Amino acid sequence: MLWKFSHRAQALKSSTIREILKVTEHSDVISFAGGLPAPDAFPIAEIQAAVNTVLASKDIYDALQYGPTEGYTPLRQWIANYLSTRDQIAISADEILIVTGSQQALDLIGKALINEKDKVLVETPTYLGALQSFNQFNPEYVAISSDEKGLIPESIDDKLASSAKFLYSIPNFQNPTGRRLSLERRQALAAKAKQNDLVLIEDDPYGDLDYQGQRLPGLYTLAPENTVYLGSFSKILTPGLRLGYVVANKQFIGKLVQLKQASDLHTPSLTQYIAYQIISKNNFLNHHIPKIRQLYSTRCQYMLHSLAQYMPKEVSWNQPEGGMFIWVELPESINATELLSEAISRKVVFVPGETFFAHAEKNNCLRLAFVTVPEEKIDCGIKILAEIINHHIHQPQEKIVMV
Amino acid sequence: MLWKFSHRAQALKSSTIREILKVTEHSDVISFAGGLPAPDAFPIAEIQAAVNTVLASKDIYDALQYGPTEGYTPLRQWIANYLSTRDQIAISADEILIVTGSQQALDLIGKALINEKDKVLVETPTYLGALQSFNQFNPEYVAISSDEKGLIPESIDDKLASSAKFLYSIPNFQNPTGRRLSLERRQALAAKAKQNDLVLIEDDPYGDLDYQGQRLPGLYTLAPENTVYLGSFSKILTPGLRLGYVVANKQFIGKLVQLKQASDLHTPSLTQYIAYQIISKNNFLNHHIPKIRQLYSTRCQYMLHSLAQYMPKEVSWNQPEGGMFIWVELPESINATELLSEAISRKVVFVPGETFFAHAEKNNCLRLAFVTVPEEKIDCGIKILAEIINHHIHQPQEKIVMV
Repeated sequence: MLWKFSHRAQALKSSTIREILKVTEHSDVISFAGGLPAPDAFPIAEIQAAVNTVLASKDIYDALQYGPTEGYTPLRQWIANYLSTRDQIAISADEILIVTGSQQALDLIGKALINEKDKVLVETPTYLGALQSFNQFNPEYVAISSDEKGLIPESIDDKLASSAKFLYSIPNFQNPTGRRLSLERRQALAAKAKQNDLVLIEDDPYGDLDYQGQRLPGLYTLAPENTVYLGSFSKILTPGLRLGYVVANKQFIGKLVQLKQASDLHTPSLTQYIAYQIISKNNFLNHHIPKIRQLYSTRCQYMLHSLAQYMPKEVSWNQPEGGMFIWVELPESINATELLSEAISRKVVFVPGETFFAHAEKNNCLRLAFVTVPEEKIDCGIKILAEIINHHIHQPQEKIVMV
Repeated sequence: MLWKFSHRAQALKSSTIREILKVTEHSDVISFAGGLPAPDAFPIAEIQAAVNTVLASKDIYDALQYGPTEGYTPLRQWIANYLSTRDQIAISADEILIVTGSQQALDLIGKALINEKDKVLVETPTYLGALQSFNQFNPEYVAISSDEKGLIPESIDDKLASSAKFLYSIPNFQNPTGRRLSLERRQALAAKAKQNDLVLIEDDPYGDLDYQGQRLPGLYTLAPENTVYLGSFSKILTPGLRLGYVVANKQFIGKLVQLKQASDLHTPSLTQYIAYQIISKNNFLNHHIPKIRQLYSTRCQYMLHSLAQYMPKEVSWNQPEGGMFIWVELPESINATELLSEAISRKVVFVPGETFFAHAEKNNCLRLAFVTVPEEKIDCGIKILAEIINHHIHQPQEKIVMV
């Protein structure tokens, strides 16, 4: 059978990160590759209690039946209250759509906004999963320059801002760089968006994971009319529930609801009831999130310490204030994808930087995820990476395959 | 803010069925509208036991973590075994993709196959949710003539068969008509597909609900190379888990996996573990499915009896051999959507037929769902509908608003 695939399906390439993750399934590999949250932080006891409450309640039939596309109303109401309190702005439940993980929000947003060849502005680098999702609708990416303070609003001129379909960004502890967009740049970006009717997609899975608990104002508090905010329970509860949400004005949510209905009818009811049961009790997140911050901060400090101890002076990296990732820059002569082959043979994996660029730009960077790796393995893994990098720096002419 | 929606989003219309379902949320309405399975048939005790087993097992961390896009391997293996036994053909786990309800399969198939203006063949009438899903990719529908034995293969000429992207059909107890495609037509359709390299999408959520337990061979057993088979746990377990699956050859599944990864990464892990735990124990479905068949068959017989008792002679309907729906044809002078306004005022709802046609064809039909309505209410609701229809037949000139 010769399948007559659509143009969008023909254009799909297999993902490097995906193949890497398959390798990391072996337990003897030290993986800095996955973007997985730490299972140590899963609130197992609370989940067990919540599930038993749902199963024993009179709501059990509703939790197992088809449900509304918008999501479980009490959960939407809870999210509205949580955000209104956290960010001191007024949000109502009908401005919220529950999605099957915030990856689904990217798919729905692509469907809602992107026509072929539309300009989509992205950070440099940006989240691989967003590129994969938007690629389905064949946009033209414009990569916005970024530095250690995040994307540079001045590099978006008014003509570009007004002609683009939207700008996609992760202002808090970005994937892959771990960078946080500075307050001044948030304000400048919000002003530019308002001035040019530019839609901002603010993806915020890591926002609650700031180690000092000092949240910067979100784009949707600075430019609420222009911003579509994506939240997730994957990093503060568990990812296996696949629960995220979109916050936007009612007209936009209404369109996403129609698209979601066509895409999967609705997010599973049972998982929504379970999540609501957990988070609505005893200010659960107010107690739980600080524990995750503490755990992640400790592992981050540990990796930073190992990097400082082992890496040659030609290598640099950032000091994350939150989140799950460190971004490492190598001398330009070193290709991170080639480095990966060698690292795999020594049972250490990471994600090469080139994966995260809308346009192949450079490949002397790599993303290190630290939160799922026990401390002694962080030390061991970074030491191995440093040995390999050192070898490359000091024997640059040698072919990897011959090492 | 002026949202610059994509062409596909601009073309979305709000769904009549959706607005109707909102009305039926009131408990004093007799609803023949929803396509919901009967909650009486939910295996609550087994679900509770399964959840507790998963939560107490060493797999709990995996059930709450990110998982593979293809789905939970033991569940895929179980499905492969189940289908191989049921349908006596060889299916392997890597020919199976778990999806978030089979509605998601429709979205992924649309993404994988449809370019703008591609010909997509559909039954007359067909499942509304499939039209909504495919509409996102702007195909050109060709409506294939159907009668009480299902679609008529002879009405697809070879030129059409070889130029179409695919044919979408529900051979068993179709939504909305409740019809089953006859064996002869299945064979003719399979032969035509093989001859013309036509892809068949076989959507089969109701296949196990044949009241006599006499399954006809599926299209994917008759033309395995050409067929993409969609299965669902919504009608034999519960819909709130949102679990379905796609069966197709590895190349096609591989493409769907890439599209699913971009769409929602993967189906929730926890619900997959729960479902596997239920169905893999003690031949669960072999005991459970006959109970659902019995329940649905009884309610179907009850509705057929009420229809025979109350409906005027000008009205006709089919005698379903399985599934959840009866298709009622009214005299051509009666518009079912207008009838609905009147029925709503008397607290009875159904879905007007026009919703289910790819091209607006006729609107003197309606879909009645019988499985969620207790018997005394079936009788009461059909009596009210018959009164309204009778009134229309005997006072055809009078405007409804003036009644």
